[in-house]
Amino acid sequence: MVDIASRVWNHKWKIDPIVRSLIDTDFYKLLMCQSVFRNKPETQVTFSLINRSKHIPLADLIDEGELREQLDHIRSLSLSRGESTWLRGNTFYGKRQMFRPDFMEWFEGLRLPPYHLERKGDQYELTFEGSWPEVMLWEIPALAVLMELRSRAVLDRMGRFELQVLYARGMTRVWEKIEALREIPDLSIADFGTRRRHSFLWQDWCVQAMQEGLGDAFTGTSNCKIAMSREVEAIGTNAHELPMVYAALAKDDAALAQAPYDVLQDWHDEHEGNLRIILPDTYGTKGFLDNAPDWLAGWTGIRVDSGDPAVAAQTAIDWWKSRGEDPSEKRVIFSDGLDVAKIKELHQQFAGKVKASFGWGTLLTNDFRGLVPDDALAPFSLVCKAVKANGSPTVKLSDNPNKAMGPQSEIDRYKRVFGVGDQAAQKVIV
Amino acid sequence: MVDIASRVWNHKWKIDPIVRSLIDTDFYKLLMCQSVFRNKPETQVTFSLINRSKHIPLADLIDEGELREQLDHIRSLSLSRGESTWLRGNTFYGKRQMFRPDFMEWFEGLRLPPYHLERKGDQYELTFEGSWPEVMLWEIPALAVLMELRSRAVLDRMGRFELQVLYARGMTRVWEKIEALREIPDLSIADFGTRRRHSFLWQDWCVQAMQEGLGDAFTGTSNCKIAMSREVEAIGTNAHELPMVYAALAKDDAALAQAPYDVLQDWHDEHEGNLRIILPDTYGTKGFLDNAPDWLAGWTGIRVDSGDPAVAAQTAIDWWKSRGEDPSEKRVIFSDGLDVAKIKELHQQFAGKVKASFGWGTLLTNDFRGLVPDDALAPFSLVCKAVKANGSPTVKLSDNPNKAMGPQSEIDRYKRVFGVGDQAAQKVIV
Repeated sequence: MVDIASRVWNHKWKIDPIVRSLIDTDFYKLLMCQSVFRNKPETQVTFSLINRSKHIPLADLIDEGELREQLDHIRSLSLSRGESTWLRGNTFYGKRQMFRPDFMEWFEGLRLPPYHLERKGDQYELTFEGSWPEVMLWEIPALAVLMELRSRAVLDRMGRFELQVLYARGMTRVWEKIEALREIPDLSIADFGTRRRHSFLWQDWCVQAMQEGLGDAFTGTSNCKIAMSREVEAIGTNAHELPMVYAALAKDDAALAQAPYDVLQDWHDEHEGNLRIILPDTYGTKGFLDNAPDWLAGWTGIRVDSGDPAVAAQTAIDWWKSRGEDPSEKRVIFSDGLDVAKIKELHQQFAGKVKASFGWGTLLTNDFRGLVPDDALAPFSLVCKAVKANGSPTVKLSDNPNKAMGPQSEIDRYKRVFGVGDQAAQKVIV
Repeated sequence: MVDIASRVWNHKWKIDPIVRSLIDTDFYKLLMCQSVFRNKPETQVTFSLINRSKHIPLADLIDEGELREQLDHIRSLSLSRGESTWLRGNTFYGKRQMFRPDFMEWFEGLRLPPYHLERKGDQYELTFEGSWPEVMLWEIPALAVLMELRSRAVLDRMGRFELQVLYARGMTRVWEKIEALREIPDLSIADFGTRRRHSFLWQDWCVQAMQEGLGDAFTGTSNCKIAMSREVEAIGTNAHELPMVYAALAKDDAALAQAPYDVLQDWHDEHEGNLRIILPDTYGTKGFLDNAPDWLAGWTGIRVDSGDPAVAAQTAIDWWKSRGEDPSEKRVIFSDGLDVAKIKELHQQFAGKVKASFGWGTLLTNDFRGLVPDDALAPFSLVCKAVKANGSPTVKLSDNPNKAMGPQSEIDRYKRVFGVGDQAAQKVIV
């Protein structure tokens, strides 16, 4: 039977929206947003799209009009009643009322601020300016829109069955990964793949396949909308943008050196348990840990997001030991460029030493590598970052010089202040 | 949007029928049925299911109640008005009114006759008795029901995403085959996979994938229902049952020796062009051709359905030459146990020598080999054959002793009458 109403509904769409909800975003964005809303609501920031994969000519691939339609659509979104009820009433990490009433009231009235879009050669310049708690919510939907419009541009040229077989191949690949992961004892893995996903529907499929295929080993998704609709845990804590903006706001070198700890002091006051996860690599993991106050060693765990993950995990283990903590009680969350082989290797290497868990991103939700001519669907390294705060440029160093960003003079200054020496470069896959 | 009406419609089904139409059958069955209806309408025959793959315990796998429900459902079917219009009005092999009004009138009133079903150990005995034109129409639906019930029994144990990935793998495999076939210049290939298909929906998918993937190289399907709904050519000519029954009816050895030619004499009177295809292997290709009347050499081509296909094709070429015919103007249809490698090999071997075409059966519509544990979905060799005609047993020799059937004393007699010597055994795949 043809569902005529659905068909009519579909063909009257002006666009097929990519982002359908303000909570089609990462959970940690909302946690951080609440923290910023409380602690730094007046900060003026600029976020900017950065395509680290210059060989992908985004402006040639994606029609500017379509891009504007998608971004305009996002600006028309507001929190629905059900979404609001879920955020207010759901248990996150075992805690009720994670989101405070004043934050929720603000969020319920929010529309995303304007964007600035301009074509520059074969790339787009896409920036967002305004108050930090508003602008920061652009990051994930902006990335998702660009990734999916690029997918759509490639898929547009394909036949109906060719398309179905492409997805058949993609599904088979995801399922084979899940089958391989199933063999790992005591695995703990979550979907972190919202930002650079192939598409919304595809991420939703991947999450459901993980649910069926991995059972309890699948701990949840970073995507709030999918967590809500599929009734899985929303996962995430905090990200580089907090120390980056705090650092940019620092008045002098002493304040700069203190900034990353100020971030975590604010976080410490607001959260406990599994939400107390250190992200130590913004200005070099080693120095960050060496200079950290003792109360940080009491936190639940650490997230490893750049550099050689085994080195970073071992650094954390040594640090906990030096502070009299038992590393086997600590959690290490690996979240950088993971795929099955790497997950297996890290799991084996750290089994019994720490509680390892995995935030699996782009190679879960966007692995169509090798499935179309010219590898035109291969994921690429697109980010959307805070580049300025109250007029000052932001800087990120990370444990991989290939992921560093900011003006060179500021990078040099940060390296000096944070005592960052030689770093081993790692290829950035996604 | 949930299509509530469809959901309600679905859940009130008593069964999910496997065979949904009397024309969900091979086109050649209808051509032969018309011929039988005209020439031998009173013949009493018995058709019987034969599972050549004894290691598949059909009666353990398939519930008898479900099997009866499916067979009873088939007995409730009659030709719909649209199906009748299509058979009466469509052009088959470029000819209008292929089916004569008297045949159509009979067919429109037809319900399939009763079946006899009994469990014997781990197998089913399934037989059909009655007048030839009625009973013969049981062959394809009976096979399709048993094949699909076996598929369903295996699929019943699988999870939702596991199922989707199984089909994803199956689709990928079919598409890879199509991609490989696309490289063959001037290919001419049709779907002959109705009888031992994985399921109706799967065959329908395969046909559509062939349409998109191969374009004009895909010449059609043997399945009338799919040919009608997908608007492709219905393909097929005649099969072993005609000479088998004619031979069983022969009064003495002289009449027996003549029987296969009598069949084709009747066919010659009824059909021309691409429908004049010789199926020479029922009692040995070599002897059949050596003793054939000259008018048969004028026919359009030959179908190779047993033995070594290259040997059989070369035998046909030599025969045409010996009768003064130009083999490059003749068609050879390969239809036995084909898959891509064999198709490529035969095409290459006979390019320019004859017009080769391919009737691709079970390994198109039922290749899930290796995709589930214990290879529980692998196709197997199930047939449904005329075993008796007016009280006499039928015999088939073919060019492969593994495909021979009938009582041993009769096989010996037929071998003598048709001068069949040593034969090379070939493994029967499907």
